[in-house]
Amino acid sequence: MNVTHPNSDDTIRLSVNDASDLGSKVLVKLGYTPQEAEIITDHLVSNAISGYAFAGLPRILAIADSPELKKPRTPVTVIHETPVSALLDGGNHVGYLSVNRATEVTIEKVRRSGIAVVAVANSWFSGRNAYYLEKIARAGFVGIHTVSSPPVVVPVGAKRPALGTNPIAFALPGEVDPFIFDMGTASTMWGEVLLKAFLDEEFPDALGVDRDGRPTRRAKEMVEGGIGPFGGHKGYGMSIAIQALGLLAGAKRRNGQVCDFGFLFIAFDPGLLMPPDQFKAELSELLTFIKTRPRQDGVDEIRIPSERAFRERELLREQGIVLSRQVYERFDAILSDRE
Amino acid sequence: MNVTHPNSDDTIRLSVNDASDLGSKVLVKLGYTPQEAEIITDHLVSNAISGYAFAGLPRILAIADSPELKKPRTPVTVIHETPVSALLDGGNHVGYLSVNRATEVTIEKVRRSGIAVVAVANSWFSGRNAYYLEKIARAGFVGIHTVSSPPVVVPVGAKRPALGTNPIAFALPGEVDPFIFDMGTASTMWGEVLLKAFLDEEFPDALGVDRDGRPTRRAKEMVEGGIGPFGGHKGYGMSIAIQALGLLAGAKRRNGQVCDFGFLFIAFDPGLLMPPDQFKAELSELLTFIKTRPRQDGVDEIRIPSERAFRERELLREQGIVLSRQVYERFDAILSDRE
Repeated sequence: MNVTHPNSDDTIRLSVNDASDLGSKVLVKLGYTPQEAEIITDHLVSNAISGYAFAGLPRILAIADSPELKKPRTPVTVIHETPVSALLDGGNHVGYLSVNRATEVTIEKVRRSGIAVVAVANSWFSGRNAYYLEKIARAGFVGIHTVSSPPVVVPVGAKRPALGTNPIAFALPGEVDPFIFDMGTASTMWGEVLLKAFLDEEFPDALGVDRDGRPTRRAKEMVEGGIGPFGGHKGYGMSIAIQALGLLAGAKRRNGQVCDFGFLFIAFDPGLLMPPDQFKAELSELLTFIKTRPRQDGVDEIRIPSERAFRERELLREQGIVLSRQVYERFDAILSDRE
Repeated sequence: MNVTHPNSDDTIRLSVNDASDLGSKVLVKLGYTPQEAEIITDHLVSNAISGYAFAGLPRILAIADSPELKKPRTPVTVIHETPVSALLDGGNHVGYLSVNRATEVTIEKVRRSGIAVVAVANSWFSGRNAYYLEKIARAGFVGIHTVSSPPVVVPVGAKRPALGTNPIAFALPGEVDPFIFDMGTASTMWGEVLLKAFLDEEFPDALGVDRDGRPTRRAKEMVEGGIGPFGGHKGYGMSIAIQALGLLAGAKRRNGQVCDFGFLFIAFDPGLLMPPDQFKAELSELLTFIKTRPRQDGVDEIRIPSERAFRERELLREQGIVLSRQVYERFDAILSDRE
């Protein structure tokens, strides 16, 4: 493996191929089959070259450290299906595997029936929602994806959490790249709360509450309390809808409190309504119309969600992937059985 | 007709039956068939007794005054369908009629196939999205509804509008009433901008821009300029997705600029994934869990979207509907051919 240290002794730059090999080897060492390791690594490398370094190979350490994922795992299986639907059991796998399988099943169902709803639960974190929706959109289909999760978001008027960060994402097939938009319904990403809590940092605004329900800017206190929904009633209402869709996926509950993740896809062939090439052309026209509106002073470009990620991906694919030396050394320790 | 004047000389209170009769008569006078008049009136009376007075019978005057609706109308027809989809031509009708027909078609398709996508364009304002989704949810189905419309919303970084107010709504069947959540993706409702512009009022915040793209609080200037998306990038991204779904419905365009409305429904039977009664019970449990979280000081109740509207509806149905005398007198003028 050809390792270069371009900038700093604290980081290591790997080619995409070398990063993929390294990730797969570590995952196989952690007990995943080569095929599973390849699926997970493909997702993590895609995140890294799409500009989401934090969602890249370091997530393998989150897999290694997860107490949930050390419990017995069974194959991801379809437990109930019709020509237009499938319910999967995630087999206590990390979402990178189970949600990827759900994506494949969604594409198969839409190819056959034109539209489908597919859900999976009994499964853990799944990474970047746009990764899955990109596959659906590149297969030519419109996709909506929701993820429900255990409570960290406090309802409007409450002191304690009752809802997950509950993202929703939309994808539409395009002439070159798809249009993908992914948003959380919470005031901030929970991962950012955890990172800032680790560093004992504050947010500029009181995005959350402490354990007693008092507004706070301090991330450490939010971890014990919770965060607000995005935009008050709007994020709150969407979050309830997404939590409820997660119930349909089979999310586990205890007295109404959701205890794990619920992943849902709705996808359909735009050809049901319009010739797909016409739709792609009309979407391009719409996006061009938006991008060519007169700009505010100081604005270089009117941005379309997902466009920059696709543009940067080719560049980052060439440049390779930067890993912190700390992460690299832990991978090394796992590979040489020192942990 | 039994008309009482309970509070003021400026308003008139009508029983629900009398209000329905009056609305239907005026609509028949305006050229609608009795059946069409009944469909429109049912929607408007439902709005009024759900607490949305401004969306009630006065909308008949918007129908009477619309230059678009004076143009020739053809029957609302399904122009392309499969077992899981339908594309309707709205026949230049008001959305109250065409979107209601699309709702019926959606329910028929989901009964037969379990899931469906149904769209309609060539049609005008459709009223309250929750009205249609309530029918879908009371038929036992999960529904998502989006509406795209001509540009009034300014993209992030732009000076001129490129997107509609583009609402999205979700409905889930419940044990007693459904859960329905309806939100616009713009910073405020366009109807409110028009009303405040008529009164030459200002918003507390600069929710829009003037004709030159400068931020403004003044509604009159926003009518010439535009309003922002809700919550910056989040509302902006959702709005693009909804505008694109409206293209699939067949919204008219000129060089990428959307010129009319595009209505889309996606609905499915929760029984595809879970026994429906189990889902309804789990949803009740979830909503109870949310409502019983400890409350912030001064908060009487943790509210669930749509719950209050259903609760108030029975009360308002008893109390009857209040109309301004001004609206009542215009109805009277239409009925007696004085306009």
